[in-house]
Amino acid sequence: MALFSGLSAFPITPMTPEGGVIVPDLQRLVRRIEAGGADSIGLLGSTGTYMFLSRDERRRAVAAAVEAAASIPVMVGVGALRTDEAEAVARDAAAEGAAGLLLAPVSYNPLTEEEVFQHFVAVAMASDLPLCIYSNPGTTNFTFSPEFVARLTAIPAVAAIKLPLPSSRDMAADLAAFRQAAPGLSVGYSGDWGCKEALLAGADCWYSVAAGLFSEPVAALAAAAMRGDRAVAERCDADFAGLWDLFRAHGGLRVMYAAANMLGLTEAQPPRPLLPLMEDVKRRLASALPAGAADV
Amino acid sequence: MALFSGLSAFPITPMTPEGGVIVPDLQRLVRRIEAGGADSIGLLGSTGTYMFLSRDERRRAVAAAVEAAASIPVMVGVGALRTDEAEAVARDAAAEGAAGLLLAPVSYNPLTEEEVFQHFVAVAMASDLPLCIYSNPGTTNFTFSPEFVARLTAIPAVAAIKLPLPSSRDMAADLAAFRQAAPGLSVGYSGDWGCKEALLAGADCWYSVAAGLFSEPVAALAAAAMRGDRAVAERCDADFAGLWDLFRAHGGLRVMYAAANMLGLTEAQPPRPLLPLMEDVKRRLASALPAGAADV
Repeated sequence: MALFSGLSAFPITPMTPEGGVIVPDLQRLVRRIEAGGADSIGLLGSTGTYMFLSRDERRRAVAAAVEAAASIPVMVGVGALRTDEAEAVARDAAAEGAAGLLLAPVSYNPLTEEEVFQHFVAVAMASDLPLCIYSNPGTTNFTFSPEFVARLTAIPAVAAIKLPLPSSRDMAADLAAFRQAAPGLSVGYSGDWGCKEALLAGADCWYSVAAGLFSEPVAALAAAAMRGDRAVAERCDADFAGLWDLFRAHGGLRVMYAAANMLGLTEAQPPRPLLPLMEDVKRRLASALPAGAADV
Repeated sequence: MALFSGLSAFPITPMTPEGGVIVPDLQRLVRRIEAGGADSIGLLGSTGTYMFLSRDERRRAVAAAVEAAASIPVMVGVGALRTDEAEAVARDAAAEGAAGLLLAPVSYNPLTEEEVFQHFVAVAMASDLPLCIYSNPGTTNFTFSPEFVARLTAIPAVAAIKLPLPSSRDMAADLAAFRQAAPGLSVGYSGDWGCKEALLAGADCWYSVAAGLFSEPVAALAAAAMRGDRAVAERCDADFAGLWDLFRAHGGLRVMYAAANMLGLTEAQPPRPLLPLMEDVKRRLASALPAGAADV
């Protein structure tokens, strides 16, 4: 299935300043992603600001996205600070038609491996859906070792992992470590600027922020990388160089809000305390958008 | 006033598995802290699991603690992922009789300095209470530089900062850097195992986890350190060596729940995904409790 393979696109979740999902804008983004050729939607990921939404609004977002996505599966982020809350949003997501779940060990206090394991067991048991481990040490302060991931695969629902770009070894070595520890697990990456290399190295999935708005050119890049065509992949990737620079400097989330505003897709702003990009950065963004972005 | 000076004790917030505050247990802890000689209560700090409680339960905890604390001020943690939520809990805390607020830049996405500044302005304006900056980079991934703290002192409510133990310079140098950048600001520390040195170096306040249960012996240690009596302070501190080791290995929060259970003060357990200490660690804890702990 296409749920944990190919290109998974992570849209922002347009909301009012009070935290209410703006359903027409979210559905517009979902339809645009699907039209561009992504293989799945990654709803309510970090870029989808899941931790800024109430349980009710998270459920509304799932219902809206599932309704708008005609033929591609919707994976839903179900991280929460309390285990019972994560179980509840997992049940809600299943009830609204999600095809899979994405679970980060969100924490305030740094968690132990045993705590993360028991948390994953509990959330996995809350529904029948397959589950993708969301490794995001930059926000959770928890690092998934290949050995611990192997332990997590004892949970039948665990079908995939979404990894950050490796910082202390090269992509091929990182991928090999997880492949060896957890055979059969779908291994994918986020960090858009490094995902061309991840797919060229044989990763199963690119969990992409940029594809949340630019799924057509990102899908072309992903397709080239997945068929091993480095020359075409690098040509496609070069078109995103300016965007990747802005992602690294300002965070993909802030950049994607500004881009969505520029393209007239939503007037929503990032939830406070997050602030919109400064005007000078917006000007740089305007000239860094991938070619033909506005037409997709 | 004693709000941001001397010994501030941070109790756990006993709650049911469903997240409801157990008011009699919380009030028992508050009375015990006050009887032991602490100068203030640090309610709903990290040890008080503020991020695991709903807005309504946070308000109930404040009301209960203020009612129980006969003569010492109650400072209340008001961190939240959304700025509007932090403003709301700040208003609630003020309405229930809090004497001051403690604000960490809680985040999912790492925040910029401008985002943290605007967040602090908003929360400061939500009440008339003095505000303590809560620097906790281990959970928030945000580091307060002395220069940025100086900028924050332009907000009239900002009266104090609660710092982690310095990792890259000695205590005297760290304290001097903040004293120089922000004259008049109360500068205090947390990280119980290093706070004897902080007070000996002239810090204004010890924000203490251990004092949430053992305020009498911690107050004796704090008093010795504040009057510069290193010999007595070191003798008092030695009595806590086993506890400090357990704090560093397992986190003060998990240790304090187990200790409160052992002392018969509450049967509450840490909120999931946090797990109770393993049995072997509990046995080590039993022999590491400070002398006379059960009598206080």
